[in-house]
Amino acid sequence: MLDKSLVNKFKEIIKENGTIFTEEDQLACYSYDAYAEIPVLPDIVVKPSNYEQIEKIIKLCNDANIPLITRGAGTNLSGGTVPKTGGCVLLTTGFNKILEINENDLYAVVQSGVITANLAKAVESKGLFYPPDPGSMNISTIGGNVAENAGGLRGLKYGVTKDYVMGINFFCPEGNYVKSGGKTVKLVTGFNLHGLMISSEGMLGVMTDITLKLIPKPKASKSMLVLFKDMITACEMVSAIIAAKIVPATLEFLDNFTINTVEEASKIGLPTDAGALLLIEVDGYEGQVEEEFSKILEISKKMGGDLKVANSLEERNKIWEARRKALSSLARLKPTLILEDATVPRSKIPEMMRRIQAITKKYNLTIGTFGHAGDGNLHPTILTDRRNKEEMERVEKAIDEIFEAALDLEGTLSGEHGVGTAKAKYLEREVGKGTIIYMKKLKNGTDPKNILNPHKMGL
Amino acid sequence: MLDKSLVNKFKEIIKENGTIFTEEDQLACYSYDAYAEIPVLPDIVVKPSNYEQIEKIIKLCNDANIPLITRGAGTNLSGGTVPKTGGCVLLTTGFNKILEINENDLYAVVQSGVITANLAKAVESKGLFYPPDPGSMNISTIGGNVAENAGGLRGLKYGVTKDYVMGINFFCPEGNYVKSGGKTVKLVTGFNLHGLMISSEGMLGVMTDITLKLIPKPKASKSMLVLFKDMITACEMVSAIIAAKIVPATLEFLDNFTINTVEEASKIGLPTDAGALLLIEVDGYEGQVEEEFSKILEISKKMGGDLKVANSLEERNKIWEARRKALSSLARLKPTLILEDATVPRSKIPEMMRRIQAITKKYNLTIGTFGHAGDGNLHPTILTDRRNKEEMERVEKAIDEIFEAALDLEGTLSGEHGVGTAKAKYLEREVGKGTIIYMKKLKNGTDPKNILNPHKMGL
Repeated sequence: MLDKSLVNKFKEIIKENGTIFTEEDQLACYSYDAYAEIPVLPDIVVKPSNYEQIEKIIKLCNDANIPLITRGAGTNLSGGTVPKTGGCVLLTTGFNKILEINENDLYAVVQSGVITANLAKAVESKGLFYPPDPGSMNISTIGGNVAENAGGLRGLKYGVTKDYVMGINFFCPEGNYVKSGGKTVKLVTGFNLHGLMISSEGMLGVMTDITLKLIPKPKASKSMLVLFKDMITACEMVSAIIAAKIVPATLEFLDNFTINTVEEASKIGLPTDAGALLLIEVDGYEGQVEEEFSKILEISKKMGGDLKVANSLEERNKIWEARRKALSSLARLKPTLILEDATVPRSKIPEMMRRIQAITKKYNLTIGTFGHAGDGNLHPTILTDRRNKEEMERVEKAIDEIFEAALDLEGTLSGEHGVGTAKAKYLEREVGKGTIIYMKKLKNGTDPKNILNPHKMGL
Repeated sequence: MLDKSLVNKFKEIIKENGTIFTEEDQLACYSYDAYAEIPVLPDIVVKPSNYEQIEKIIKLCNDANIPLITRGAGTNLSGGTVPKTGGCVLLTTGFNKILEINENDLYAVVQSGVITANLAKAVESKGLFYPPDPGSMNISTIGGNVAENAGGLRGLKYGVTKDYVMGINFFCPEGNYVKSGGKTVKLVTGFNLHGLMISSEGMLGVMTDITLKLIPKPKASKSMLVLFKDMITACEMVSAIIAAKIVPATLEFLDNFTINTVEEASKIGLPTDAGALLLIEVDGYEGQVEEEFSKILEISKKMGGDLKVANSLEERNKIWEARRKALSSLARLKPTLILEDATVPRSKIPEMMRRIQAITKKYNLTIGTFGHAGDGNLHPTILTDRRNKEEMERVEKAIDEIFEAALDLEGTLSGEHGVGTAKAKYLEREVGKGTIIYMKKLKNGTDPKNILNPHKMGL
């Protein structure tokens, strides 16, 4: 609880068009995010209406030693926006303006609270393309996407959020305004601070404006679904496609368990005896799309896949429905869903899937696996019940072994969900002690009082 | 001068296969780089042969307060590797191994001293593509490319060095080993420290291994040269091409002065009455290349350009000869050449060229302008003589106004050459005071004794 004089200072700062919450039932809405964790109430929630208010809030928090947690839509999957030790939650959702879409110079400038899908739509209406498409894009904000380096289905060909960040303006933890990057493709003036904001999880600055690269919209695309009897063969087809020098826009994977779960929930006609399926979309120039499709068809035949191509928008939507419904269908089965995102170089996916199967069996758990096979970013999804202590112990051990397998196969603990509180204790295992020390020094140098989102990533 | 006991400590560290220079004539070779500046002798130059030696050198420098300047090929254009206050120059040229080229997972792992062109060739032999192509790529190192975020001719379509960095291992200024990023397209474990290394100019760590993204080699390409009577129309064609949703691989510009200089030096048959010329290469899928070429031809006709297309490799090489010879031809004219790289959003190029012309006239200087028009990165090249004090004063003023113009047009002081010592005094004008403070705090946090490349970027 903040004392009344402090609350009044916050009120004074945001009195013009800002919003403030101090009641417990209001605070409760900002005590958790999309990661299944024990909620923690913030002391106060503020929604500033202009940048001067942000500056003053940061300075007040810094002066009074109040933790400051920046929050967009709260869709992150690693506990990054849970106020671990209370403090002030700063909502960026009021900053939702697309400031500029420049068709000649192929960039957009947006405020940090702009919703990802809104930007994507606005850009598309001008024949341009903003590729990053995290699963939560209909509610997630661009600021949150940057802070978590959000990925999505198009990572393989088009990269992730970081590949589109050209510049960021942000307030430092002491309230100074920092401008990094800009509107030109080439720019090397000073440290790459806009790069540093990427995957910084709200710990190094409070972003206001973000300049993003845009590209021309691909002229054509083609979606297909490939069914395999054998799960490992499906995984091997991923590498076969890349080895043929084809880089699809999306290359998604669903295992047999997920296929069955989706079919049970939605009756869309998936064959429940398939070992796995791949969803593939190629895009680009028209002739290229046709050529790549033919090659994929050939590979599929050779490997014993059963390929169905979408010949209309309706058929395309039907194909993608299976993928869209994967997570929600799995979520119906048990009270607690733990969505992992250990990631490996894509050629290691067959081995990774073998290991996930073995771990599932060893700990007698329910795990459905789907995800972005093209970029090695699978989502083994553990279905369990937090109240079942004995099973949760097995779940913990399984997660541990999944991480161990990913690192052993030269992968990473997290492809796109971030560290936050969820993976803090595992981080050193991947990056080593020297990296943790460097991160601490960097954090301590730029935020000596550890005001911004403290205790995340173990810092 | 370092005292003898310190020199002996360096000798002890690198005794196995390392090299050490302490004589003045040897040190002189490392007292300057490709930026025209007054040379400063280092106290000692060491070329370690393994990573343990790097670690020990850093720790020794840190303990004994000796500035440590990491140096690849020394091709940087902003004085970034000049040892401003002496100290130890650490050569990375011994670390020249390509450790892995992975065709399935589309990445390469290289040591920091690998020469850019060697990597490009090795990758190409496997049907893959590493696009960044800085002008110095035949001698520059990948480590240097990362430290300066080197650009090149392909920035427009393929981006710059930063767009290919997936992971970096480096020693921190206190000798700890830091690992950031890795071999997967998606990876969000911890701060984006490999991103932070980009354009850090040797001030935040000493890089050892770098993991780089590769892409499939484009199947086809087509080069063309477009001559214009009027310089501004040539600049306007750049925007017209982008507006037609065509993103060429390269889109270069030479002004009349540069055309004449090249022709005088090389007699390659360029029309000396042309106001400007554009060199364009489109690449990609075969049909796409033809379609884009037709569209460019149409735009050129509409705008009064005279387009010549290369129908053979020989013709292609001839077209590109004009561009390759621009800098060396200009360099013949006067004793001192100052190569600027102020950069603007590409749609602002016509206005930027108008301003450069006005500045040239105002200060009665010889300035040839060529460069990467497609990404707004022009190189106004001032030809002068450092010994002519009066002219140098006018040069200084002209540079000042060129920077002012670039910032006024929402551009940057430097597109691809970096800050180093050359642009340190101008930096705050672009990024503002808050950014300088943040950079200082970051540098101070990670390098409290300011050992790594001190006094660069004004820090």
